[in-house]
Amino acid sequence: LPSMQTSGCKPCPSFKLREVASMYFTMIAVFLVILVVALQGSAPRESDFPYKVPLDPQGLLELSWNVSYPEQTVHFQLLVRDLKFGLLFGMSDRGEFENADLAVLWSDGHNSYFGDAWSDTKGQLHMDSQQDYQLLGARRATEGLYLLFRRAFSTCDPKDYLIEDGTVHLIYGILEKPVHSLQAINISAIHRGLQRVQLLKPNITIPELPSDMKTMELTAPNIVIPSEETTYWCYMAELPAGFPKHHIIMYEPVITAGNEALVHHMEVFQCAAEFDSFPLYNGPCDSKMKPERLNYCRHVLAAWAMGAQAFYYPEEAGLAFGGPGSSRYLRLEVHYHNPLMFKGRRDSSGIRLYYTSTLRRHDAGIMELGLVYTPVMAIPPGEDAFILTGYCTDKCTQLALPAAGIRIFASQLHTHLAGRKVVTVLSRDGRERQVVNADRHYSPHFQEIRMLKEVVAVFPGDELITTCTYNTEDRSRATVGGFGILEEMCVNYVHYYPQTQLELCKSAVDPGYLHRYFNLVNRFNDEEVCTCPQVSVPQQFFSVPWNTFNRDVLKSLYSFAPISMHCNKSSAVRFPGEWEKQPLPSITERLREPVPRCPPTPGPRPAAPVPLDLGKLRRD
Amino acid sequence: LPSMQTSGCKPCPSFKLREVASMYFTMIAVFLVILVVALQGSAPRESDFPYKVPLDPQGLLELSWNVSYPEQTVHFQLLVRDLKFGLLFGMSDRGEFENADLAVLWSDGHNSYFGDAWSDTKGQLHMDSQQDYQLLGARRATEGLYLLFRRAFSTCDPKDYLIEDGTVHLIYGILEKPVHSLQAINISAIHRGLQRVQLLKPNITIPELPSDMKTMELTAPNIVIPSEETTYWCYMAELPAGFPKHHIIMYEPVITAGNEALVHHMEVFQCAAEFDSFPLYNGPCDSKMKPERLNYCRHVLAAWAMGAQAFYYPEEAGLAFGGPGSSRYLRLEVHYHNPLMFKGRRDSSGIRLYYTSTLRRHDAGIMELGLVYTPVMAIPPGEDAFILTGYCTDKCTQLALPAAGIRIFASQLHTHLAGRKVVTVLSRDGRERQVVNADRHYSPHFQEIRMLKEVVAVFPGDELITTCTYNTEDRSRATVGGFGILEEMCVNYVHYYPQTQLELCKSAVDPGYLHRYFNLVNRFNDEEVCTCPQVSVPQQFFSVPWNTFNRDVLKSLYSFAPISMHCNKSSAVRFPGEWEKQPLPSITERLREPVPRCPPTPGPRPAAPVPLDLGKLRRD
Repeated sequence: LPSMQTSGCKPCPSFKLREVASMYFTMIAVFLVILVVALQGSAPRESDFPYKVPLDPQGLLELSWNVSYPEQTVHFQLLVRDLKFGLLFGMSDRGEFENADLAVLWSDGHNSYFGDAWSDTKGQLHMDSQQDYQLLGARRATEGLYLLFRRAFSTCDPKDYLIEDGTVHLIYGILEKPVHSLQAINISAIHRGLQRVQLLKPNITIPELPSDMKTMELTAPNIVIPSEETTYWCYMAELPAGFPKHHIIMYEPVITAGNEALVHHMEVFQCAAEFDSFPLYNGPCDSKMKPERLNYCRHVLAAWAMGAQAFYYPEEAGLAFGGPGSSRYLRLEVHYHNPLMFKGRRDSSGIRLYYTSTLRRHDAGIMELGLVYTPVMAIPPGEDAFILTGYCTDKCTQLALPAAGIRIFASQLHTHLAGRKVVTVLSRDGRERQVVNADRHYSPHFQEIRMLKEVVAVFPGDELITTCTYNTEDRSRATVGGFGILEEMCVNYVHYYPQTQLELCKSAVDPGYLHRYFNLVNRFNDEEVCTCPQVSVPQQFFSVPWNTFNRDVLKSLYSFAPISMHCNKSSAVRFPGEWEKQPLPSITERLREPVPRCPPTPGPRPAAPVPLDLGKLRRD
Repeated sequence: LPSMQTSGCKPCPSFKLREVASMYFTMIAVFLVILVVALQGSAPRESDFPYKVPLDPQGLLELSWNVSYPEQTVHFQLLVRDLKFGLLFGMSDRGEFENADLAVLWSDGHNSYFGDAWSDTKGQLHMDSQQDYQLLGARRATEGLYLLFRRAFSTCDPKDYLIEDGTVHLIYGILEKPVHSLQAINISAIHRGLQRVQLLKPNITIPELPSDMKTMELTAPNIVIPSEETTYWCYMAELPAGFPKHHIIMYEPVITAGNEALVHHMEVFQCAAEFDSFPLYNGPCDSKMKPERLNYCRHVLAAWAMGAQAFYYPEEAGLAFGGPGSSRYLRLEVHYHNPLMFKGRRDSSGIRLYYTSTLRRHDAGIMELGLVYTPVMAIPPGEDAFILTGYCTDKCTQLALPAAGIRIFASQLHTHLAGRKVVTVLSRDGRERQVVNADRHYSPHFQEIRMLKEVVAVFPGDELITTCTYNTEDRSRATVGGFGILEEMCVNYVHYYPQTQLELCKSAVDPGYLHRYFNLVNRFNDEEVCTCPQVSVPQQFFSVPWNTFNRDVLKSLYSFAPISMHCNKSSAVRFPGEWEKQPLPSITERLREPVPRCPPTPGPRPAAPVPLDLGKLRRD
C-alpha cells in the first residue's frame, strides 16, 4: 500500500482558529488504495475541469468541474488538502444544511465509505435510496486527495437537488473525528460552510481576437486586506489624456496568488462624463474619507464574481470606452470576503481589460429591465415568496428598437436583500417565447454578469417581463421599492447590441390605482389606514394591517391595475408618447416548465455506500 | 388452432342503429391462440372479480374487476361480446378521449396486438413508452372474448392516469374496421362512450347478520322504461299500518335481467312524518301528474348507483325506520339512462332492504356538511376551477357531539351541474388530520353513498371542512348558491352513529362582508354595480363586471371574511348560541398530498406492443 503524508498546511494561517480538539488529528498518515474505480490513465489535465472555485475561506477544499450538455451531467473534481475523517459536499436550495443533497466521504479510522445522502428538515443525514453522486475515482497527490465524481443535472429522485441554470448553493462540511456511520454525523457540530457558483456555465465558442489587441490592468495597488468579514475596496484609475474610443472585447480576473478564497467579486465602473475630474481615491468604499463624487462612477464596464471565467464580447460587438463624450475616470471595486479575519494579507487583484482600436461592427449597450425604483411597488411583511413583476411593453420596444431588432448576449440580475428569484421572459403577440435569463436560486450576495446560453433576439413589439420573488419573513413592516438597502429593486441589466437610445424599459403600478387600494383597505378594515393625501406612500404601506385579505388584494391589484411605463433614453429623458395608465401586457400562453429528463441509467437501488480503502486513519 | 364463432348478438336490439358499414363485419370467425400468458388453471371464478359494470348501453362490453391494496393494483376482466377488430379501454380525468390513458387491442385482420397507449390533446393515439396495462391472458367463451389485465394504481408515468379514490371515468371504443397501426385509429370516428365507477372499492369485512333478518323489496311494478335518454321514475310504497321501529342493516340492488346497462341509479326516500298520508303515485318524477306532496319525501333511506354492491351498516348501528314519529310512506326513485332509446323495455328494478326488529346498539344518523343553500356563496362565470368552502366549526361540534364522539362510516357527496371535485377534511386544533371523503373526479351525474375505507371518529371541538371545486366555463353570468338546477350546492351527507340532534353543520359567508365586497367592487370599478339595498344578492352578483381583480377579490373575501354558521337540529331549528360573524377556522398544518408509490417493476421500456394471435379476422 502506498503511504501518504499530510502535505503540510501550506495556506494555513487559520491554524490558531481551529478548535483544540481538532489539533489532535492534524498529522495523519493516510494509506491510500482505491478499490472502486481507478482513474483511467494518469491524472486529469487542468483543461478537463475548466471551472474552479475554493469552497472554504482557507482553501482546504477546492472544487473544479466541467459540464456536459449532451450527457446532462456535471463532472466534479474535489481537492481535499488536509483530509481528516471525511467530508460532506452537496447542494441545497439556498445553502442550508437541512433538506440538502449530499455526497459524503466518511471514515471510522479503519474503513472509509463514499455515498449519496440527503438531510431531512432537522439536518439528520440519511443514505439515499438512489445513488446519484457516482464516484469515478480518487487520487493521491502531494497537495491532497482528489475525488472525482459525477452527477446528472436531474436524477428524478425527489430527495435530490435539481441542478438548474443560475446560482447553485454548494455546501461543504469537514469531518474532524471518526464516525461510525452516516447517521452518526452531527451536521450542526461540524466545520461547514457554503459557496455560491453558477455550475451550468454556458458553452460558448470563444470569438477570434484581433492581432492589435492591447491589455490594461485595473488592480488594487498592493493593498492590505482589512481584517473584517466584508470589505468593499474602491480604487480610482485614469485613462491617458486623449485616449481615443476603443472597444473592450474581453476581460478576465487577475487574482493575487493565495487570495483566491478571499476575493469574492470585482467590478469596473466608468464615471459620469459630466465631471471633468475625479479624485484618485484608494480605500474602503464605505469610508468617511471617500469623496462624494465617486458616487457618480456607476456605469458598469466589467464585472467578475468567484467561479466566473473570462468574459468575451460576441464577435460583432465591443463595449465602447475612451474617446470624446466619455469620462477618463474608472473606479475598481473589489469585494473581499474574509470571515476568518486574516490580518495583514496583501492584495493586488483586479480586472484585466482586453481592448482594440479596430472597432467592431456594433457598440454594445446595457439596458435596464424590471421595476422603476418607486415605493408604489411594495412587499408585505412576513411573505415567503411574494412576486413583483416589471414590464417592458410592446409599445416601448416598438418605438425604441430598430426593425432588425437587438441581440441580448448577457445579463446581470439585481435585487436588494429580500430577492430570492429573478426571471425575465420574452413574450411576442401575447405568447411567452423564451426565457432571457432565470435564476431560481438567486442570491443578492452573488450578482454576476452572465453570458446567456443562447443569444436572444428582441424585435419591435416584443415584451420583456421580469419577475422577482421576495422573502420578507424576517420583516415586521412592508418593504417598499427604492434605493435603500432595506428597500427593494427588481432589475435585469441586459447586455446587447447594437446599442440603441433605450436605456430603461421599466414599469410600476399606476399610482391612482394604488390610491384606490388604500381607500379600499381603509373602508374594508374600518378606517385603520390613513389615506390622507399628505401621507407618503411608504407611510400608507406601513399602516396597512396585513391580514390575508389586504395581502391578497394587493397581489390582485398588481396583476390587474394599469402601469406607468418608463421608456427612457436615460434615467430622466422619456421617449415621446403616452406612458401613464398603460394596460398590463396580457399573456395568453405561458412557457411550460421544462420536465426534467431523468438519467438513462440511475445509480444502484437501494442504498449502498461504496467502500473506499483509504487505509487506517489514525490520531497522531 | 381452435376456432371461434361470434356468439350471435344476444342482447342486441341496437342493431338498427349501427352504421351500414359496420354490418359488414358482424359475422367473424375468430381463431384464437394466446401466445403471451395463458390463464393459470381454468377460467377465473366470479368471486375473483367481485365488481362488475356494463360499459356501453348495449352491454357489449362488460367490465369486472378486483382491487388489491397490498399490491396497489387493479385486476380487470373485460368481456367483449362481439369482437370486431379490437377495442379501446381506458381512463381519463372526466371521460374525455383526449389526454386519456388507454389499453388498446387492435387487429389488421391478420395480426392482433395489445398495448398501453395514450391520446394527446388532439385525440391522436401514441404507444406509451412504459407499458403499464399488463396483459395477463385472453380466453374464448361462448359469450365472447375475455381479456385479463392488470394496472397499478400509480405508474409514475406522466402519460398515465393515476387511479385514486372516488369516481373514475372509464372510456371505451369499439374498432369496427381493421387498423394497420395504433396511430391509424381515428378516435373521433369510432363507436365510443364513457362509464363512471368507483374503481377503488373499500375493503370492508361484512358484519354478521342476525337470524331474524327480514327483507322488503321496493321495486318498480313492471313498468315500461320510457324511450328517452333520461328518466327519473317515481314509485310510492307504504309500510303496513303499525309497522314498529326496525333497523335497516343492509340493502342491495334488484336489477331486472337484461336491464343492467339501463338502470343508472336508485334511491329510497322516507316521506315527512308531518303528513298522515301520501298519494301512491307511479310514474315519471318530472310528470305534471306527479302530486306536489311527493316533494316531502326526501329523507334518504338507501341509495345505489351502477357498479355499487350491497351496502352494509356497521355492526354497532342500523338505520331506524318504522315506529311512531316516522312516516309509513316511502318513495323509490329509479334513474334510467337509455341513450339508445330502446322502446317497450319492461323493468322491475329496485332495492331490497334487509332489516331486523332486534335493534342494534346505535341508531345511525345522517348529517349535512358543506355550504348553506344561499346566494351569498357564488361562482363567477368562466372559471375552470373555482373553489368554495363550507365549514362545520369547533364551536358547533363542541356543543352538539357527545364526549365519546361519533363515527362516520359512509358519505354521499352532492353538488349541482358545475361541481367537479368535493373533499371533506377533518381538522383538530388547527391541524388537518384525515380526509373524510375525497372525490377529485366527482361528477354530479354519479352520486353514490360510499362506504369509507376507514371509519372516521369526530369529537367535540373538531372541524369538518368541505371544499367543492366548480367549472363555469360554459356560463356567462355568476352561479349563485341555491336549490335550482343552475344554482349550486356543496354538500357532503355523512352517515354516522350514534345519531345526535345535529342534522346540519354548514356555513356561508357573512352577508355584511359580502356587502362590503359589492361596495368595494363598485368604487374600484367606477360605480358599475348597483348596491342599492333593494337589489337582491343574485342581481348584485349578475351585475359585477368579472375582470380578474373582481374575481381575485371575491376569492380573497371568501378566504377571509367571517362566516354565518348553521349549527342546526333540523333545517329550521338552530342550537342555542351566537352563530353570526364567526371566525373562519384557521389551519396551521395541511395534510400532505400523498406521493404516489411507483410500481416496483415497471413494464417494458421502451414501447413494445404485445402481439396476440387471434387468428385471421376477416370480413364475412
